[in-house]
Amino acid sequence: MTLSTPLTGVVPPVCTPLTPDREVDTASLVRLVDHLLDGGVDGLFVLGSTSEVAYLTDRQRALVVDTVVRHAGGQLPVLAGAIDMTTPRVLDHVRALTEAGADAAVVTAPFYTRTHPAEIARHFRLVASASAVPVLAYDLPVSVHTKLSAELVLELAADGVLAGLKDSSGAEGAFRSVLLGRRAVPVPFSVLTGSEVTVDAALAMGADGVVPGLGNVDPAGYVRLYAACREGDWERARAEQERLCGLFGMVTAGDPGRMGGSSSALGAFKAALHLRGVIACPVTAEPQIPLSPRETEKVGKHLAAAGLL
Amino acid sequence: MTLSTPLTGVVPPVCTPLTPDREVDTASLVRLVDHLLDGGVDGLFVLGSTSEVAYLTDRQRALVVDTVVRHAGGQLPVLAGAIDMTTPRVLDHVRALTEAGADAAVVTAPFYTRTHPAEIARHFRLVASASAVPVLAYDLPVSVHTKLSAELVLELAADGVLAGLKDSSGAEGAFRSVLLGRRAVPVPFSVLTGSEVTVDAALAMGADGVVPGLGNVDPAGYVRLYAACREGDWERARAEQERLCGLFGMVTAGDPGRMGGSSSALGAFKAALHLRGVIACPVTAEPQIPLSPRETEKVGKHLAAAGLL
Amino acid sequence: MTLSTPLTGVVPPVCTPLTPDREVDTASLVRLVDHLLDGGVDGLFVLGSTSEVAYLTDRQRALVVDTVVRHAGGQLPVLAGAIDMTTPRVLDHVRALTEAGADAAVVTAPFYTRTHPAEIARHFRLVASASAVPVLAYDLPVSVHTKLSAELVLELAADGVLAGLKDSSGAEGAFRSVLLGRRAVPVPFSVLTGSEVTVDAALAMGADGVVPGLGNVDPAGYVRLYAACREGDWERARAEQERLCGLFGMVTAGDPGRMGGSSSALGAFKAALHLRGVIACPVTAEPQIPLSPRETEKVGKHLAAAGLL
Amino acid sequence: MTLSTPLTGVVPPVCTPLTPDREVDTASLVRLVDHLLDGGVDGLFVLGSTSEVAYLTDRQRALVVDTVVRHAGGQLPVLAGAIDMTTPRVLDHVRALTEAGADAAVVTAPFYTRTHPAEIARHFRLVASASAVPVLAYDLPVSVHTKLSAELVLELAADGVLAGLKDSSGAEGAFRSVLLGRRAVPVPFSVLTGSEVTVDAALAMGADGVVPGLGNVDPAGYVRLYAACREGDWERARAEQERLCGLFGMVTAGDPGRMGGSSSALGAFKAALHLRGVIACPVTAEPQIPLSPRETEKVGKHLAAAGLL
Repeated sequence: MTLSTPLTGVVPPVCTPLTPDREVDTASLVRLVDHLLDGGVDGLFVLGSTSEVAYLTDRQRALVVDTVVRHAGGQLPVLAGAIDMTTPRVLDHVRALTEAGADAAVVTAPFYTRTHPAEIARHFRLVASASAVPVLAYDLPVSVHTKLSAELVLELAADGVLAGLKDSSGAEGAFRSVLLGRRAVPVPFSVLTGSEVTVDAALAMGADGVVPGLGNVDPAGYVRLYAACREGDWERARAEQERLCGLFGMVTAGDPGRMGGSSSALGAFKAALHLRGVIACPVTAEPQIPLSPRETEKVGKHLAAAGLL
Repeated sequence: MTLSTPLTGVVPPVCTPLTPDREVDTASLVRLVDHLLDGGVDGLFVLGSTSEVAYLTDRQRALVVDTVVRHAGGQLPVLAGAIDMTTPRVLDHVRALTEAGADAAVVTAPFYTRTHPAEIARHFRLVASASAVPVLAYDLPVSVHTKLSAELVLELAADGVLAGLKDSSGAEGAFRSVLLGRRAVPVPFSVLTGSEVTVDAALAMGADGVVPGLGNVDPAGYVRLYAACREGDWERARAEQERLCGLFGMVTAGDPGRMGGSSSALGAFKAALHLRGVIACPVTAEPQIPLSPRETEKVGKHLAAAGLL
Repeated sequence: MTLSTPLTGVVPPVCTPLTPDREVDTASLVRLVDHLLDGGVDGLFVLGSTSEVAYLTDRQRALVVDTVVRHAGGQLPVLAGAIDMTTPRVLDHVRALTEAGADAAVVTAPFYTRTHPAEIARHFRLVASASAVPVLAYDLPVSVHTKLSAELVLELAADGVLAGLKDSSGAEGAFRSVLLGRRAVPVPFSVLTGSEVTVDAALAMGADGVVPGLGNVDPAGYVRLYAACREGDWERARAEQERLCGLFGMVTAGDPGRMGGSSSALGAFKAALHLRGVIACPVTAEPQIPLSPRETEKVGKHLAAAGLL
Repeated sequence: MTLSTPLTGVVPPVCTPLTPDREVDTASLVRLVDHLLDGGVDGLFVLGSTSEVAYLTDRQRALVVDTVVRHAGGQLPVLAGAIDMTTPRVLDHVRALTEAGADAAVVTAPFYTRTHPAEIARHFRLVASASAVPVLAYDLPVSVHTKLSAELVLELAADGVLAGLKDSSGAEGAFRSVLLGRRAVPVPFSVLTGSEVTVDAALAMGADGVVPGLGNVDPAGYVRLYAACREGDWERARAEQERLCGLFGMVTAGDPGRMGGSSSALGAFKAALHLRGVIACPVTAEPQIPLSPRETEKVGKHLAAAGLL
């Protein structure tokens, strides 16, 4: 499996099921991958933010890639996040995920350090030139605290540095600039949206695919949504998208007075996967705050309302 | 060497000299440690932001701690940063630095992930309870994008979770709240300022010590400043501090139009150490932008004006 | 003219032409209104951000509303911004624009002061209860530095406080939440996007209309775009939208190294109106930096490429 | 009264007492001014953030300046804020406060609009050249969302544009840069800190005076603190400052879960003035949330602990 053709379709960021003592639950992970394959997805993205990559040790990261590649590698592309602060540390992750068999690396701008667009460009160029697999840029300002500009992304695309962009910035205007600008890019370049709730809009504008965290819970829904868009049936697409918007409401199940947004959203996805019988345990990594039983009930109601329970 | 008594005095965050191909230059690192010891410092903080910890691989981090502990361990406390995104990853670093012989771990709030004060507290509690060495909190909002509140710090101090605070927030009001509040804390708790330019003020307010990046360049200056403050000679302290403020101007040597603040400040410290003959090569880690010859000249002028060249 | 029926269609925020000595150029303003009416717009929004409301004195604001209402009032709804820091000051503006004959007031959350959602709700409730005309909320986080949550907007809509929302947040996910949530709102409520570049997407999601700053330059383009969306001709809509996206590139004409984003964008709109012969003078209000001749040339090229010159 | 000599000493930002129906309570305002004069203050700053300037209508602003100037003008300098979004609107306020007899205008950088250092410089230059009274810069990033750099302030000071700086940024490092840099400024230039809790430090660094909101509640305390600093009695200064730090704890009386920081801090100052019998009514302007009786009790406890009740 290579990425010689641009990546398209539904590529969910795969949750990382944990045991009660917070080891990677590989049996549940394999079941989750099967659940996604059954749903009809076009690729898998492990070690993304939704995968709790920020919470996984290097050993756990390697185990995740190895488990997923062994189970599904070759059937569909497996992308893996190489999420760390700067170039040398990212390169260590790129080497590890390449050895474990991932087909592409997904990389953010530097974070923690105070950076500059010239340094961000240098970072992607250095990472890509040292990587044996294609590199996609991951634009996630809520975590990285800088936004990749359309100009920068298009420059790196045109120079063959980047094989694609996963845009989780929520800034649709800049996203569209990339989509319009890449028409002048002479090499293949995949543009994927990380939004769960504006997939129809992104595909209508010309995006190639979607990387929806909620796709863990309802992969078949996103696959139907993608198909409707590709067929130009915008009415059906909108109806499916709106159903998924309702389901996405689960991410606010956790009380913001006692936990952060990651705890609530990732807790909800895992609670839903647990309630649906896909994973054995809904626990999230430390120091996230677990959902209360009542908050978990809310997640169940969202599932029921969407016909998933 | 333990931290059974609270840490006081001048504890510079030790720069990490690199070779031209960006390996840790252990010979230069040993010379830098000697330069700091000759200056009369009271402790060493390796793997801090000034040490380019964000750019060092795990292997390089271990090499740094090992080199410094072998050379200076036992003579004075060696603190080491365990800088990573979340609890499980921080704990891996804490284990590594403990094995390498560091006397304490310095830990930030979680970053990259969207967090909450309850999760930050949980993070420090989990890290401290699993750590064989004392844990100090590192408040660096410019990197971490959350500010540790005085309430949170004092709660963790009173519960014996934290052995101290390194405050690099630049928010003197909140810093003073910690200093006043800790009088009611029944256990030893060190409060250190990370500011280079308000050390006299911080010590006058009751701080225990200072962790100045610029202390790499002029350790003796900070040692004199600390001594003057301890003797209550505020006039002499102010004069020394103002000389150091002038020297600190070197951090703006790099053109902000073509590089970030880290590239400029860390580049200037290393250029100064190179010009002073302490380290063999002024190179900074990737993807930082190097200072130009003309920018390096500016650093030299700052050294000359401060009588250091 | 009342707003008894929800507002729909193209409602451009009307630029405020100035004389070289920075008085309101009422003759040019009337010509601009005619230009917009000729383009087929459905309403006019004076004293918005694009109108340089932040730069207009109270006397100038009154003159603008008076001029536009006298010329176009009764033919189509005239909305006016009541942009100020807090409730009492906003209410003064609401009174002034009501006396001058505006049909509705457009109001942001409090700014300059540190605020809270409960205070924002109270602000809108107090303003609406004291206003003789309907009140629309204006969500513009880039200026106001808080984001109106979907929950807050929907609560105020359901209670009849707000007659509509102008969303210039660029956050399409939250925008969609408002669109989905308002289906349960038992009273009419207009949802308008302030984006120039995702109008087709916003209308496809169910928005009622668009308030595009670029609509000053090419009102007929936005009217065609709106019509294509209403007819469900998404291919034609997309083509028109993409042409307008290209034209929108003019907002980056100004060098970000020597001016802010407002100077560049508002300067470009006015330069374009001047080049098209609509207004007599392209000057912007103080302390904005004017476009250079070369930057103005760039604007001209955008016009030419879009077939408008 | 002119500002021909640089302003020094304690210059509290005067609270604006309101009646229960939120009109300016001029009788209470006069009593508050007398309370401040009795405390020994060196100047008065009306229409600052602590004065709720953001909430006062133009009519109310004029009434405040008029009342205070009539009562205390000529005895000590009366500074007045000209707080608005951009140059033309600020100039209207400057004219009004000059007519009402204020001795100087206090002006922020532009806000609401997206700005740039070149525009900020132009703003201050235009305002100063059109002002009949000296202009001081007001650095308040929490409200204005830009920080005035030391370079910009010193350039405007050297050119005679600014007569002084009121620094409420809380960034002591940049503050010290201004203090050190102004030694090379050939004209008088006052540097005042807006911090309540680091006055001893600011004066030790060379600041000329202090503009403490808490000075409304305990003017005599700040006058004693200033005197101790001027006499070089840093021990006495520190003790007085620490007592005032304890008193300042009242600003967190309001529950952050139901109100913003302005509601809590300004509500506490007014509650304290009411409890001390200085003003007739503790009400704050709309849409601020009032303190509950229990929160007001907390304010009383702070007063009692500081020996003020």
